[in-house]
Amino acid sequence: MESIYSGYPPELSPEQQKYLVKTAKDWAIQNGLAVRPSPTILPAGADPNGVLATNAPVTLFPSPFPKGCFEEANALQTAYNELYAAITCNEAWLGKIIEDLIDVDDFVSNLWKVHLAVQKEGYVQNLSLGLFRSDYMAHVSANAAPSLKQVEFNTISSSFGGLSSLVRSLHTELLTSPPSYPPHPLLQSGVPPENSAVETLAAGLAAAHQAYGPSKSTPSLPLGIAFVVQDGERNIFDQLAVSRQLTVHHHIPVFRVASSQILNQTSISNSNSARPLVYRPPHAPESAFEVTTVYLRAYYAPDEYKSARDWEARTHLERSAAIKCPTVLNQLSGCKKVQQVLAEPTGPDHLSAFLKGTDPGIIGRLRGTFAPQYDLSSHGQGRELALNLETAMHHVLKPQREGGGNNVYKSDIPEFLRSIPESDWKGWVLMELINPAANAKNVALRNDGEVLRGNVISELGVYGTILWNNAGKILHNEQGGWLLRTKGKEVNEGGVAAGFSSLDSILLF
Amino acid sequence: MESIYSGYPPELSPEQQKYLVKTAKDWAIQNGLAVRPSPTILPAGADPNGVLATNAPVTLFPSPFPKGCFEEANALQTAYNELYAAITCNEAWLGKIIEDLIDVDDFVSNLWKVHLAVQKEGYVQNLSLGLFRSDYMAHVSANAAPSLKQVEFNTISSSFGGLSSLVRSLHTELLTSPPSYPPHPLLQSGVPPENSAVETLAAGLAAAHQAYGPSKSTPSLPLGIAFVVQDGERNIFDQLAVSRQLTVHHHIPVFRVASSQILNQTSISNSNSARPLVYRPPHAPESAFEVTTVYLRAYYAPDEYKSARDWEARTHLERSAAIKCPTVLNQLSGCKKVQQVLAEPTGPDHLSAFLKGTDPGIIGRLRGTFAPQYDLSSHGQGRELALNLETAMHHVLKPQREGGGNNVYKSDIPEFLRSIPESDWKGWVLMELINPAANAKNVALRNDGEVLRGNVISELGVYGTILWNNAGKILHNEQGGWLLRTKGKEVNEGGVAAGFSSLDSILLF
Repeated sequence: MESIYSGYPPELSPEQQKYLVKTAKDWAIQNGLAVRPSPTILPAGADPNGVLATNAPVTLFPSPFPKGCFEEANALQTAYNELYAAITCNEAWLGKIIEDLIDVDDFVSNLWKVHLAVQKEGYVQNLSLGLFRSDYMAHVSANAAPSLKQVEFNTISSSFGGLSSLVRSLHTELLTSPPSYPPHPLLQSGVPPENSAVETLAAGLAAAHQAYGPSKSTPSLPLGIAFVVQDGERNIFDQLAVSRQLTVHHHIPVFRVASSQILNQTSISNSNSARPLVYRPPHAPESAFEVTTVYLRAYYAPDEYKSARDWEARTHLERSAAIKCPTVLNQLSGCKKVQQVLAEPTGPDHLSAFLKGTDPGIIGRLRGTFAPQYDLSSHGQGRELALNLETAMHHVLKPQREGGGNNVYKSDIPEFLRSIPESDWKGWVLMELINPAANAKNVALRNDGEVLRGNVISELGVYGTILWNNAGKILHNEQGGWLLRTKGKEVNEGGVAAGFSSLDSILLF
Repeated sequence: MESIYSGYPPELSPEQQKYLVKTAKDWAIQNGLAVRPSPTILPAGADPNGVLATNAPVTLFPSPFPKGCFEEANALQTAYNELYAAITCNEAWLGKIIEDLIDVDDFVSNLWKVHLAVQKEGYVQNLSLGLFRSDYMAHVSANAAPSLKQVEFNTISSSFGGLSSLVRSLHTELLTSPPSYPPHPLLQSGVPPENSAVETLAAGLAAAHQAYGPSKSTPSLPLGIAFVVQDGERNIFDQLAVSRQLTVHHHIPVFRVASSQILNQTSISNSNSARPLVYRPPHAPESAFEVTTVYLRAYYAPDEYKSARDWEARTHLERSAAIKCPTVLNQLSGCKKVQQVLAEPTGPDHLSAFLKGTDPGIIGRLRGTFAPQYDLSSHGQGRELALNLETAMHHVLKPQREGGGNNVYKSDIPEFLRSIPESDWKGWVLMELINPAANAKNVALRNDGEVLRGNVISELGVYGTILWNNAGKILHNEQGGWLLRTKGKEVNEGGVAAGFSSLDSILLF
């Protein structure tokens, strides 16, 4: 396996690099593979009206990825969808895990309170929608084929489906328009697999919209889907790819509602016990729409809840009749602790319990994607591995949060743990590091136009959507589309250390 | 007719304008309705790698346009195509007009020299391709339906087909997603007509590519189309819309060659009398392609010929075996003087002579689109009208150039003419001003995000493509797609006078 990476990607002459960079930059803007520029790449005041855009960060080459791992990830996605739907339905099981975290994790605790408050009043919507992304790496070990190992399972705001499909198209166009690339056997071996992420995600939202049924308002109102988004979202074109599919293909109205505006622009009438969520567009306040489905592309991280008003808004959405993508419970099912409990090698067979109708072979393969991971709540193997510098080197310490940026790696782990109260350790999960191909390389075009090259680690995400009711009945369960995100391992360009994280695509081998 | 414009577009509340601006800005970047920002809207050094883009300037509303005029323009386009092909074929007729201009217009003179030089050596390609755009205004007169009057006929670098199709889609999406616009009867009357500009322009280029036949090189080379472009072109996404259609739909390789690089990147072997034009991509110099068709999106204006080397490059293209879009002669047929001679009310019936097989009814309708225009080469009606301030008020003075920006209007005409030698007057054509609807209004979003509103004048362009040989045989003749360009008449926003020219679309009435 290592041999596939040696000599890939081919070296670029200055003219070749210039051509690929120019083509990628222009292609990106022509096709909406774009982001709004961050303030760090623009002088202050340079764009007072917020009109400028730039290419999303992309690799110039697709990355090789083992075909077996790719196919396995796709094959398991609907079972993973079902697993997380089943966990979300089992409030007792999930609640036991969550209650363990409440005193060490304010964010988990506040989410749980939202659930308890709505539960007390009584939920009025028994359908839930999941737009999930399961993230993996191809794990390399001596004398064996590469195996698929899960990094995390995202149950909220799974992003990059829109832009990822576009990177696949960019690389496909380069591959099929010789002489765009220098000659290399892998670049002549075919094109990246189809990427139906946009179609899949939109179809999931459309399924929820349909399942919502007729308006619950009197008189009845036109129906639509609300994307709840962050103020000043720079990754907006990723989201617009999905909303365009909903409006153009499914003919469903989509509204973008900033999380800060939820309490201003939406309302639930006290006099209607069905609690339909009514949206009044600020540009047309005389028009009212009933929201069938709330798609959260916000409210996934603690720093988005700046005041009690944000918790109030989240509770407002949760108690409404709109189908939530996700519910608070479904968001909580994405806690790292859940992943760790599922992966426990001894004790109850949670997987089989949650996936009663599923082929045991599939359950075994699902289990095969778990990397070893450990609880730190009490003395035992997890603590031993984490506190010993030598064994810590092979691990990563993760809080309950999705999305990365919060992890503690390798030699930093023992010191970090000793710097926090031992009572807080149970908020963290220790996971064995997955061992990616050591000599994978790529070249990335950043969104400021700088070009970086070096050793990289790639993470595969596979999208899935599921719609279920709280009795566990599944109305829609689909897999489709993928993301390859490629990060620089140790990038040193022109003497300056700089990391990169780029959208990539796949050449299967 | 005037009544349709009163009360249109509807007033916008601040929230309504905010919504339309935000939607248009984001839609533009998502769909490639974009331009690279000009240095005037960016601080110096803000974008060293040239990654930034912004929306093309667009109107927030489609503009009303008389249905009869729109249909007439479309109905006449293939006859116009044929007319300008026939003029180009009749070197004696065209040459007589050009020779009159040679001593007053260096640019026309130099183009003619290119033709003479290649003619002396002998042309090796008898096919010519025209990608034309005929520009009109709807002329309003008392007690009559609005009539279609031609502003100019473009025979080179006819632009905005790519972006114009996109503006039509943007306005269509806004119209079909209530409540995007405030209520107004016209906005509920339907959507802009289909706009097939991209398909039409690409099909014209593809027809030339096919007609070129097999490679003339030994050994034979793969074939492709070359877009000859300006260095640092900011309107690149307009061009990429056409090249994407060629590569994705027609599977024809397209190369972008900067006009400054023609002599470096293309060559004609001295030893091959067929003179195939060979392109070697700088990023893959070992690959060679034979250019079937040279599509000029450069070399249309005098300031693009900075040195003798540019004239050498133009001659190099002209003498090659590639089909030129356009040839030098075809470019020259777009001189204003040609338009004026065709429009002469007395003297020979040039139209009927050029359009022998054409229904006289069509020829009459073609003639009906001509605005009165006058020669200034000798004493007569033209000079009288131009030098009298009162009559000058109803006229525009045009040089031979296409594309605008060079015209002298109304009261400026007498003084301008007196400021130049009388011997140069024959380089200019006096044209009666077309009388557009006086109270048309719109709101424009500039590419720096500023919003301007006011009285506007709209110009309709209709695209046509024609492939013919120099014996006058027509191989391909199509009409399709349109452009509405809307300019501010007198815009005064916040005390600052500022003009705008925006891409627009059409609501027929």
